[in-house]
Amino acid sequence: MLKVGIVGGTGYTGVELLRILSQHPQVQITAITSRKEAGTPVAEMYPSLRRRVDLAFVTPDDAKLTQCDVVFFATPHGVAMSQARELVDAGVKIIDLAADFRLKDVAEFEQWYGMPHTCPDILGEAVYGLPELNREAIKRARVVGNPGCYPTTVQLGFAPLLKTRGLIEASQLIANCASGASGAGRKAEVHTLLAESSDNFKAYGVKGHRHGPEINQQLRMVAGVPAGSGEVNCLFVPHLLPTIRGIHSTLYARLTAAGRSVDLQQLFEDFYRDEPFIDVMPPGSAPETRSVRASNFVRIAVHRPQPDLAMVLVVEDNLTKGASGQAVQCMNLMCGLDETLGLMHVPVLP
Amino acid sequence: MLKVGIVGGTGYTGVELLRILSQHPQVQITAITSRKEAGTPVAEMYPSLRRRVDLAFVTPDDAKLTQCDVVFFATPHGVAMSQARELVDAGVKIIDLAADFRLKDVAEFEQWYGMPHTCPDILGEAVYGLPELNREAIKRARVVGNPGCYPTTVQLGFAPLLKTRGLIEASQLIANCASGASGAGRKAEVHTLLAESSDNFKAYGVKGHRHGPEINQQLRMVAGVPAGSGEVNCLFVPHLLPTIRGIHSTLYARLTAAGRSVDLQQLFEDFYRDEPFIDVMPPGSAPETRSVRASNFVRIAVHRPQPDLAMVLVVEDNLTKGASGQAVQCMNLMCGLDETLGLMHVPVLP
Amino acid sequence: MLKVGIVGGTGYTGVELLRILSQHPQVQITAITSRKEAGTPVAEMYPSLRRRVDLAFVTPDDAKLTQCDVVFFATPHGVAMSQARELVDAGVKIIDLAADFRLKDVAEFEQWYGMPHTCPDILGEAVYGLPELNREAIKRARVVGNPGCYPTTVQLGFAPLLKTRGLIEASQLIANCASGASGAGRKAEVHTLLAESSDNFKAYGVKGHRHGPEINQQLRMVAGVPAGSGEVNCLFVPHLLPTIRGIHSTLYARLTAAGRSVDLQQLFEDFYRDEPFIDVMPPGSAPETRSVRASNFVRIAVHRPQPDLAMVLVVEDNLTKGASGQAVQCMNLMCGLDETLGLMHVPVLP
Amino acid sequence: MLKVGIVGGTGYTGVELLRILSQHPQVQITAITSRKEAGTPVAEMYPSLRRRVDLAFVTPDDAKLTQCDVVFFATPHGVAMSQARELVDAGVKIIDLAADFRLKDVAEFEQWYGMPHTCPDILGEAVYGLPELNREAIKRARVVGNPGCYPTTVQLGFAPLLKTRGLIEASQLIANCASGASGAGRKAEVHTLLAESSDNFKAYGVKGHRHGPEINQQLRMVAGVPAGSGEVNCLFVPHLLPTIRGIHSTLYARLTAAGRSVDLQQLFEDFYRDEPFIDVMPPGSAPETRSVRASNFVRIAVHRPQPDLAMVLVVEDNLTKGASGQAVQCMNLMCGLDETLGLMHVPVLP
Repeated sequence: MLKVGIVGGTGYTGVELLRILSQHPQVQITAITSRKEAGTPVAEMYPSLRRRVDLAFVTPDDAKLTQCDVVFFATPHGVAMSQARELVDAGVKIIDLAADFRLKDVAEFEQWYGMPHTCPDILGEAVYGLPELNREAIKRARVVGNPGCYPTTVQLGFAPLLKTRGLIEASQLIANCASGASGAGRKAEVHTLLAESSDNFKAYGVKGHRHGPEINQQLRMVAGVPAGSGEVNCLFVPHLLPTIRGIHSTLYARLTAAGRSVDLQQLFEDFYRDEPFIDVMPPGSAPETRSVRASNFVRIAVHRPQPDLAMVLVVEDNLTKGASGQAVQCMNLMCGLDETLGLMHVPVLP
Repeated sequence: MLKVGIVGGTGYTGVELLRILSQHPQVQITAITSRKEAGTPVAEMYPSLRRRVDLAFVTPDDAKLTQCDVVFFATPHGVAMSQARELVDAGVKIIDLAADFRLKDVAEFEQWYGMPHTCPDILGEAVYGLPELNREAIKRARVVGNPGCYPTTVQLGFAPLLKTRGLIEASQLIANCASGASGAGRKAEVHTLLAESSDNFKAYGVKGHRHGPEINQQLRMVAGVPAGSGEVNCLFVPHLLPTIRGIHSTLYARLTAAGRSVDLQQLFEDFYRDEPFIDVMPPGSAPETRSVRASNFVRIAVHRPQPDLAMVLVVEDNLTKGASGQAVQCMNLMCGLDETLGLMHVPVLP
Repeated sequence: MLKVGIVGGTGYTGVELLRILSQHPQVQITAITSRKEAGTPVAEMYPSLRRRVDLAFVTPDDAKLTQCDVVFFATPHGVAMSQARELVDAGVKIIDLAADFRLKDVAEFEQWYGMPHTCPDILGEAVYGLPELNREAIKRARVVGNPGCYPTTVQLGFAPLLKTRGLIEASQLIANCASGASGAGRKAEVHTLLAESSDNFKAYGVKGHRHGPEINQQLRMVAGVPAGSGEVNCLFVPHLLPTIRGIHSTLYARLTAAGRSVDLQQLFEDFYRDEPFIDVMPPGSAPETRSVRASNFVRIAVHRPQPDLAMVLVVEDNLTKGASGQAVQCMNLMCGLDETLGLMHVPVLP
Repeated sequence: MLKVGIVGGTGYTGVELLRILSQHPQVQITAITSRKEAGTPVAEMYPSLRRRVDLAFVTPDDAKLTQCDVVFFATPHGVAMSQARELVDAGVKIIDLAADFRLKDVAEFEQWYGMPHTCPDILGEAVYGLPELNREAIKRARVVGNPGCYPTTVQLGFAPLLKTRGLIEASQLIANCASGASGAGRKAEVHTLLAESSDNFKAYGVKGHRHGPEINQQLRMVAGVPAGSGEVNCLFVPHLLPTIRGIHSTLYARLTAAGRSVDLQQLFEDFYRDEPFIDVMPPGSAPETRSVRASNFVRIAVHRPQPDLAMVLVVEDNLTKGASGQAVQCMNLMCGLDETLGLMHVPVLP
């Protein structure tokens, strides 16, 4: 049994980690921390956990995290980097669900997240935790930066088109994405009140969103072009859905002459043939967010609505494959377990 | 044209007042105040008002409210009572959408609202603003306490049964009610986030809710029993609906032998025959909240599912008839206008 | 491994059975039937099952149901009774999720379901499948009538109050209930369209609902009074929630003098102390439907808002504990398995 | 007063016409037809109209439509063309809310709508009813083909960029759109049930949607290129929102060198300066669907997220400006009334 700690479990990625880990056959959750809620049973905050999770929140000091095998950070940006050194030195594997270890360029991190990066050396060794594109590195990692929810879908959707050079006009990519309100977290804010965001739809982050640089960093890595290269460039436009969970990304790429001669369906099926969580749907499909609800699956459909245009539709559950499920997938890999262990829940539909 | 001021217009009852008053043929809105948002155009906060309302928020000092004919308080509890004296002395009519002038018993007010009542003399003359039960007094009032959203439905549903003594077991009334999330106001709170309250349903206020004493005060008045009398007693149980607007009340009253011999449908139709906003539906009906969306109408259906049990179903839009529409209805009465002026909007369905 | 067949799996109880049974460690689903969809992979109709369920629908003739250990009927009313005899004779255990084996009074069945009961002898031996109230009989049953979704909550909520005679005025019970739209099934109908039933709330079945007689039959059984006795009588009022899943029941019972002296919290905790799926919440609680989403748990809170009034709040997932989860719970009991096997999924929140 | 008839008023565009026209100061609704519902009061089907609309449905034979000044067809495709000749000959103005008079190319109509066009001569004279782009022709029209809901937003969003030649790569336009479920009409269908489409999001019509050819026909007209010219070409991708009303379109156009030197904000503000219903929002805005709910307004924001990319965000209420409101706007123009008469309702928010 792995001894697992969770730092900062009061938010949605925290409760989703608890849901998944409490049903994982090889995990023992030894501590979940919250300074503010120390002493409160987690099931008091999240009654869905009554009868299934008996833990109470503890202060970081009481958590004995250095005795864990793995520690997840389900915290705001900036927390993991402040505690990573001590844990790494103690031999604890770290998975950060925030952004501390995603952006490799410290200046870019500081620009988008508005804080200095206090831990650039660990950032240097940290591995970007998207197993489908980075599996071997994750297996060897001590520190994983778990991908953002939107970037997971955009990378998985564009990767097959980018991996082979020259199929698409890679400098003109568009990612038109939509997320449910849980993506904004469990924070008291007006704009995500039910009375504000239900029966409504809008774009947001139209002047730039933090997931934009993450998406471009990673797409360039997939394409094998240098960081910052304009050869690969994606416009990312998020929209707010009146749903609890779910991300839907509609991706557009202009095909080159070479790209127009490729069988896109075959390309995608081959690319993801052995992936346990990636479902390339039959030609003509339109995946629904509910088809992956509360599961670690991603469903992808590739279309060619015009001779020179590829359109890729991708759905995931933002809290599972977009956050906590993917983090557990990384844990499985880092700890030598079967990658799918504890993660094969059938999606909840309807 | 009436000169109308609105104090504290940044919440939902404020924007609903603006929606109604900006379309009212006899109203000129001369000022809308917000200390915090002074200088901000209201249409910047509420883009629905762009092209239709050109006002900006002003500080109370700049609002020249004493020059208004009518001032609405769309403020938290406690504000109206602090400003009422000056306005009344200046001859301005006041309509408070909060609770400052609803509960006649100062001790009860202080118990439920957790603040001293600083203006008991004006409370003494204030009129409870439910036109269907209190029309003549409203016409003569200088100060109106606009009813709570839930109490409006409960009073309108029970009134025909209570007005004639002896029809029901009046000490055992049950009001099982449900409200959309806008009833909680435009406050940043976790429990009314879309991700918390959408696809969900629960009771709340189970240890007691402020609208309970208001309901009982008024039902006793309708029944003609003394304040505080246990002869009339209603249990009020609110529930939180995953909708934006709408209140639905399911009311239960045991019939006495006398009550069992009454034609309830006829009783209700007679009681509300001349009411422009009260729609007694045909026998067997189940009114829907959407059937009154964004309108001042109330729809009522009365049933007798067991020989000795009356069940009354009532729907209203909590922001319109449950708040701002009713306030404008009171304004019309207080100012000698046609009661329905500016209030006959057709509900928005679907 | 149990060999399990599902008759008529295209509706919501069918897909929920598939979700649960495909994750059950002791079950092999051998056939799922649909005349209309024969040949179609179930995952084509329900993409949530892609990568997890490989079955295709077959005709009843091809299903070889007599070779199953257990057959579930997830069919419209009337189907199970037409096929039960052959299966029972072949030694197959039957669990009907429709109403064929719920109402013991054939005349009552025929009145409410508008069809003759063609199988009264099997009805005679059939067991009502609510394990918390009927466990031993279910263990021995060959045929189980799985309870209706609403009746499950109403029985579980009133049972502790009824089991001890004389605590409540049992002839004046009120069950004010609300269900998500999946309760209406996967049928093309106007009134459950999103554009009709979203952002809306209403009562329905106000002239009488099929679950009324089922509730009363069972409450009388719990109380130990004769079938049809007016000593126990419950008014059942359903409402339609704009949610996908979830039932919330608010139950009211007047307490007798004897009842007023009982510690209701203790009564409920004692009554359900050993029940794996029944969660009696702490005093003052208001259970939310989402706290049991996609799980077999029921959460109950008992209140005494007035000295002589008990109020019980009950939530369940109508498709799980209200239908398919309960059916699997019955299967576990009938087949000698651990009652909770395959059913301890943590609810999905948010 | 105009005498107005409505053919086929049982659907959502019908009830929205009734909502608008019953509040229009210069309209008398003389008849509303439905073969199936003849004799039924419209308020029985739509309780929102109780107390406001006293009409009952009549058969077409009883409707005396030839005595109307204007007749609206709120019918399925194919009905208006079968009745247009008789009405036109009687001097009645016609506005068809279906597609019979939208596509100028009969072959294209027949391909996409699967029926022969029986009335090509009237199609020849019919005017496309988008006032902002076609006002003078509408004023003179006898027959108006009211635009589709999606095409209205796409045309209004691209028009300023297309009207001046050479600003954008007009052959590579993308319209990524999303609509609420009322866009699918009031038809009993499984995929728009609340339990299917709530808490969900998906693309649809991915193999081609009827509004695609309409969009391209009109964008070519705006740009002044020949029908069918590949010089202007737009990919249209619709998505289904879990909302009742509202369309949101996110439009993408690559800018030419000439286009990159244009002030897009200024271009849009100038283009729509005198339009009563088109609101060009300030730079950096993200319009919300709720900001136009139940109103005839369209809000537009133009962005330049990359140096060579224009992004236009457009919102409308699909039932109002996307259907019935626009139809009444056309009626006003055709009949010499103020274009905004009866259409300046303030949007309903929240």
